[in-house]
Amino acid sequence: MSRIVTLTSDFGLADHYVASVKGVILSLNPGATIVDITHDVSPHRVKQGLFLLECALPYFPPGTIHVAVIDPGVGSDRRALVVSNGTAVFVGPDNGLLSCALPDSCRDLASEAGEPVEVPAGIDASILSDSRFHRPSVSRTFHGRDIFAPVAAHLSLGVPLADFGSKTDFMIAFPPFRASLADDGTIVGEAIHIDRFGNAITTIRADQVPSGGVTVEVNGHRLERLARTYSDLQGSGVLIGSAGFLEIATAERRAADALDVKLGDQVVARAA
Amino acid sequence: MSRIVTLTSDFGLADHYVASVKGVILSLNPGATIVDITHDVSPHRVKQGLFLLECALPYFPPGTIHVAVIDPGVGSDRRALVVSNGTAVFVGPDNGLLSCALPDSCRDLASEAGEPVEVPAGIDASILSDSRFHRPSVSRTFHGRDIFAPVAAHLSLGVPLADFGSKTDFMIAFPPFRASLADDGTIVGEAIHIDRFGNAITTIRADQVPSGGVTVEVNGHRLERLARTYSDLQGSGVLIGSAGFLEIATAERRAADALDVKLGDQVVARAA
Amino acid sequence: MSRIVTLTSDFGLADHYVASVKGVILSLNPGATIVDITHDVSPHRVKQGLFLLECALPYFPPGTIHVAVIDPGVGSDRRALVVSNGTAVFVGPDNGLLSCALPDSCRDLASEAGEPVEVPAGIDASILSDSRFHRPSVSRTFHGRDIFAPVAAHLSLGVPLADFGSKTDFMIAFPPFRASLADDGTIVGEAIHIDRFGNAITTIRADQVPSGGVTVEVNGHRLERLARTYSDLQGSGVLIGSAGFLEIATAERRAADALDVKLGDQVVARAA
Repeated sequence: MSRIVTLTSDFGLADHYVASVKGVILSLNPGATIVDITHDVSPHRVKQGLFLLECALPYFPPGTIHVAVIDPGVGSDRRALVVSNGTAVFVGPDNGLLSCALPDSCRDLASEAGEPVEVPAGIDASILSDSRFHRPSVSRTFHGRDIFAPVAAHLSLGVPLADFGSKTDFMIAFPPFRASLADDGTIVGEAIHIDRFGNAITTIRADQVPSGGVTVEVNGHRLERLARTYSDLQGSGVLIGSAGFLEIATAERRAADALDVKLGDQVVARAA
Repeated sequence: MSRIVTLTSDFGLADHYVASVKGVILSLNPGATIVDITHDVSPHRVKQGLFLLECALPYFPPGTIHVAVIDPGVGSDRRALVVSNGTAVFVGPDNGLLSCALPDSCRDLASEAGEPVEVPAGIDASILSDSRFHRPSVSRTFHGRDIFAPVAAHLSLGVPLADFGSKTDFMIAFPPFRASLADDGTIVGEAIHIDRFGNAITTIRADQVPSGGVTVEVNGHRLERLARTYSDLQGSGVLIGSAGFLEIATAERRAADALDVKLGDQVVARAA
Repeated sequence: MSRIVTLTSDFGLADHYVASVKGVILSLNPGATIVDITHDVSPHRVKQGLFLLECALPYFPPGTIHVAVIDPGVGSDRRALVVSNGTAVFVGPDNGLLSCALPDSCRDLASEAGEPVEVPAGIDASILSDSRFHRPSVSRTFHGRDIFAPVAAHLSLGVPLADFGSKTDFMIAFPPFRASLADDGTIVGEAIHIDRFGNAITTIRADQVPSGGVTVEVNGHRLERLARTYSDLQGSGVLIGSAGFLEIATAERRAADALDVKLGDQVVARAA
């Protein structure tokens, strides 16, 4: 098991929440290396958190433990899980946020609202039911600190998955981030994230973009240019971003402002 | 002595200040593990910094070194201290920020504005007067980098407290965060922090909340529901937050916006 | 070679970019200690990033590896460099951001817009041309993750500079941050950074400030008081900040607001 533990949350950095999580992990495993993915997920936006975690995932070494806590249902009867897919281990609430542990073929069975899917062969999921691996006193409002953090620390110390609680054969999943293909051949995605530069990242995957050129429509704007790099852009255009998704960018401006793109806006691509 | 050093400040993350502090610590002790509590304390708000540090404190291992720098009096004649209470060690300006090293019984003697109290038996406080443990050149405006950081690094390397300077038998303290009890039995607290979710955290401690139910008044709003979890809420209500204080929350909204709660607003609780 | 790797960028903390860079470094060298200088450089503001990195530089131990990525030209023909000056090693785009590897005497030859200068004796600069030290697949838009991060990790593992690619005898530099001296003896600088407290940091170096007292003009405001510390200020004044530059500050207010100072505003100082 890796000593690298990543954290993804909607806690922000202005409160004591992230520090408390780190304190709990380091109290149990002073040798853990903790890396923040981001804590600036919009409050309760589970899918946005999933997207950002997925974008960073491929760059962490095998065995990394990913703790993800966007958890509006904390303290309710929503389940808490640890999931291992042989490459990485995921700890968090069972609300779709851990979908990235699953292959696309599983996630394809889920609706956009998120729903339970079967955990496939080769993936282990356990319910965090064994309180030996929780903090002695568990609050009803902060399982990141009281359950997920100590479980991650114990994982990093080599406690096997099966010890944390009973196995489960289903978990909640969201579909993969991917545009849909309409009957007329158009590719229909949406703006899934606006980054710091104002680039609007869409759910249209690189391999969905027609190789012969593409025309993109968003908010009544028509973009005809597939640029190779940001510095190639003149005005607004599209390019394949570093996470493998089509993104909308504007030279020396925030595309989200220039084209008034908001999260969730429809983006339609057609072969040029 | 622990190799864990935490940092709490009002430096923000957009300047070079936090990085310079970390560079100084790692130059002296490359094996230190540095954890940010938060750097987003409002500029010069010593009490807010104290509150956030106090909330995170219980989750760090014994021997952790806590550096806290909200220091409007830097370069003046305000003293600089290292304080050990047998559980943790605190380094920072003597302006009340290090109150969390003291038991409530000491802090009860201080006024809300902060004032010197006697350092009780079992707690050691030394003035950071020995320049051997400071940077060779000490600026007048950044003791976080030039005094507190190197002192913390030397502490983490095992230098005993007494070496840093002469002992002192008093230090400035703030009263504990706790509501007052009026003669008619009402519990009078205030909003001490608004968190990222817009929850208004009050100074009313969990053990001050009547067990038979509670009615809370803030800004002319009357809240009658003590919820168990955020997901139990319908509209606005109160619950016991993860740091053990009563907090005001609103379902799917920022309570601070919904009820127009600002820092310092009075919050009154009564047995229902 | 140090195991300390610092990061300076305009990535912000709300996206997956910083985490991906850290994942790549830790995948190659799990023992690396990664320190954020700041990721809040204004998008594409190379000079601001250089200034902040320069302010933090002196506080890191010899051999520290500094990765700096403010890189509007990513994917174009701008070069990527590793530069060692015997004290520290710098990795990033060849756009002036790595100027801090050079002595002032070299940088004095560059114009304010940045231009190539000769790499002097004692400093080694190599072009990052050897793809063995890049990620197997290099995106056109995120060399921070795909080139600079793995190069930094390999440096931290002891790979010698010469292995990363062919040596170069020039690199792009900006002039040092320093005020100019007019014929009439006035000192003409500019506001180079507004910090979290609203202090306006100027390019006027401490050693350019007349020792007998100074009068400063900015935006039609005349400041006559050289304070020793922030707490000495009454109203607005100037002082020597912790990075060795004259700065404009206001008691209990943000000077940038009180005096309406913006980045780039001219600041003129005269002997009093």
